[in-house]
Amino acid sequence: MSGLVTLLTDFGLRDPWVAEVKGALHAAWARHPRPACRPEVVDLGHDLPPGDIAAASWFLRRAAATFPPGTVHLVVVDPGVGSERPALACAAAGQRFVGPGNGLFSFLKDEPDLVVVRLEALCGRGHPRHGGVSATFHGRDLFAPAAARLALGEPPELLGPLDDVAALGADPAMGEGPRLVWIDRFGNGISDLRRDGEAAARLAAGARLDVAGVDVPGPFACYAEAPPGLPFWYWGSDGTLEVAVPGGSAAQVLGLRTGLALRVLDP
Amino acid sequence: MSGLVTLLTDFGLRDPWVAEVKGALHAAWARHPRPACRPEVVDLGHDLPPGDIAAASWFLRRAAATFPPGTVHLVVVDPGVGSERPALACAAAGQRFVGPGNGLFSFLKDEPDLVVVRLEALCGRGHPRHGGVSATFHGRDLFAPAAARLALGEPPELLGPLDDVAALGADPAMGEGPRLVWIDRFGNGISDLRRDGEAAARLAAGARLDVAGVDVPGPFACYAEAPPGLPFWYWGSDGTLEVAVPGGSAAQVLGLRTGLALRVLDP
Amino acid sequence: MSGLVTLLTDFGLRDPWVAEVKGALHAAWARHPRPACRPEVVDLGHDLPPGDIAAASWFLRRAAATFPPGTVHLVVVDPGVGSERPALACAAAGQRFVGPGNGLFSFLKDEPDLVVVRLEALCGRGHPRHGGVSATFHGRDLFAPAAARLALGEPPELLGPLDDVAALGADPAMGEGPRLVWIDRFGNGISDLRRDGEAAARLAAGARLDVAGVDVPGPFACYAEAPPGLPFWYWGSDGTLEVAVPGGSAAQVLGLRTGLALRVLDP
Repeated sequence: MSGLVTLLTDFGLRDPWVAEVKGALHAAWARHPRPACRPEVVDLGHDLPPGDIAAASWFLRRAAATFPPGTVHLVVVDPGVGSERPALACAAAGQRFVGPGNGLFSFLKDEPDLVVVRLEALCGRGHPRHGGVSATFHGRDLFAPAAARLALGEPPELLGPLDDVAALGADPAMGEGPRLVWIDRFGNGISDLRRDGEAAARLAAGARLDVAGVDVPGPFACYAEAPPGLPFWYWGSDGTLEVAVPGGSAAQVLGLRTGLALRVLDP
Repeated sequence: MSGLVTLLTDFGLRDPWVAEVKGALHAAWARHPRPACRPEVVDLGHDLPPGDIAAASWFLRRAAATFPPGTVHLVVVDPGVGSERPALACAAAGQRFVGPGNGLFSFLKDEPDLVVVRLEALCGRGHPRHGGVSATFHGRDLFAPAAARLALGEPPELLGPLDDVAALGADPAMGEGPRLVWIDRFGNGISDLRRDGEAAARLAAGARLDVAGVDVPGPFACYAEAPPGLPFWYWGSDGTLEVAVPGGSAAQVLGLRTGLALRVLDP
Repeated sequence: MSGLVTLLTDFGLRDPWVAEVKGALHAAWARHPRPACRPEVVDLGHDLPPGDIAAASWFLRRAAATFPPGTVHLVVVDPGVGSERPALACAAAGQRFVGPGNGLFSFLKDEPDLVVVRLEALCGRGHPRHGGVSATFHGRDLFAPAAARLALGEPPELLGPLDDVAALGADPAMGEGPRLVWIDRFGNGISDLRRDGEAAARLAAGARLDVAGVDVPGPFACYAEAPPGLPFWYWGSDGTLEVAVPGGSAAQVLGLRTGLALRVLDP
């Protein structure tokens, strides 16, 4: 148990929704006999594109990998709130995950220590364990109380009946073949083309990388080693291919967008 | 005492103002003999519309209700900083509130445990207790040191002379009759029409809801039960009527804006 | 040791970069024997103009001054990541600073307790102490682990070889003479004209202040004492001259921008 609850939502920061989720976590901890130090809430991000499960899942997978074992990740990107999509608490990869079973957590499906528990709350009815649950704000009324308990060391199995891997939902990935999965603030394009895969081997053997119709050279070790103002590619900090322009924005220069397919062309 | 200080401002996150308020809190705690764990600062939100006291008050009231007893809420939406508006520390509803007496805290006026204390700082002069106080940044120089002391368990009465309820200032509410009080990121419109009031009883007896000239059906239990793409109403997570469009934005479809009056029409 | 790590970046809040830096801090703490309470991460701001070292340095200097002794400031505004610019850990003014030696920390150069240590990571190669270091994300892979160790009480000298003051880099200031260094959310213009300097003495002796061709009266003690709707100047909360419009935006009324020179004209 790391005593950490991370919080990742598509709520934005103008509305009170994030504040109310934090209040629900702290209220739950105030009702329990206190550990030496109360768990800590860590904001991961709240500006995910509204309802974009693929973006949320990519962000979570990256960020979760940097946190210590025992961390509880509370994720609320939940366009189907109140519908039949399951509400879940999971243990996997030494960490805990709480949120909707809409595909967000599908990347956990092959973890050997996976445990999936269903949090029971029916549309418009109160949950017997947590008191009244609104039909439209499970983040505050269902997921936060569950995450609060996990952060105090309770195992997921105490929160509801076991479910199977199918409850995680379908993989929200965008399609076959290497693609851009994120465009960051600096205009860098981040792909899912892994350094240890087949396409990478072809690139190493002399294949060319085509991005939006442009032949992009690489790999360079870092921005400072590439020609200023021109697109290049490199192995990014998560082990996948990224495209950038030193001192500029690859997104603007190349017209990048999320989902764009990369082409690896034999010379 | 929960050991929590929440922070709600209209400072935005580009400027250093929020950072300096946090520094002032931590500096105050570093000067005191430390409790086992120092109090924790929780960001509620910093993107309130600049100077909008009604918005700040609505946000605070909702968010504060989710936090445990003893929480200190530090609120800086203070267009009259340095003027004659009082600077306050209050106890009410088992919690503590620090900020300007400009109506922000008027919703506390009927709390039976209300205590109102005036923090004395005059325009351009130093406060005897807290050292130098700038005339333009009471959030850092006056309110933060006061909130820091409350979070360590000091009662408000030690921070200044008692004042009466009038110091809270006038209610910043927008007018008579049910209105939209917030439009959220998802385009949902949140009203002040309460589920336990007279207008709600008329709706239950068959009255129709008119929003911006459109007859809006309801209540539905949640987004997933309402017809996709069409406006509907439901009882929101705070017990007031809300208007949404499943898979869309009610704000766009209906042209919603804060302050719009709702009309309850007999059939 | 205050047990605080502040975090200031130009990463924005849409991407996972801030979350991954926080994860790296907590992962480092989870690997060490734990103090009674783990250090705390405090967000200072993440919306700095991308790559703007002068803005970052100004923000940091102000904010750091409000924090208690022993605070560790982790700053990542690093357009030259992976290049020859040094990576630094510094002790100065009773606090600690970790980040790139690109001028960000040049304001520390005259502190009598200054210690500058070089964190060694070469482009594309792993750092022997911290394991693999990506060439493009030193914030997560090099600076965060270093800041984590400082927050546990390790002295900077344990993190690498001593370097001299030149490693801090050149002062990113914008030019000679008083200038506007920041325009805040409220449209106030903040200058570097200090209350205790020569230009201030001339203003006190009757000189006029010209801002963008407009004669601006002052000083007034606070917004509430100045004429509504008209520009005025005052001594701001950091001891420098500021320009505002009560109930309005000086940035709009006067067309302010960062870098604009102020003129002090004899009467």
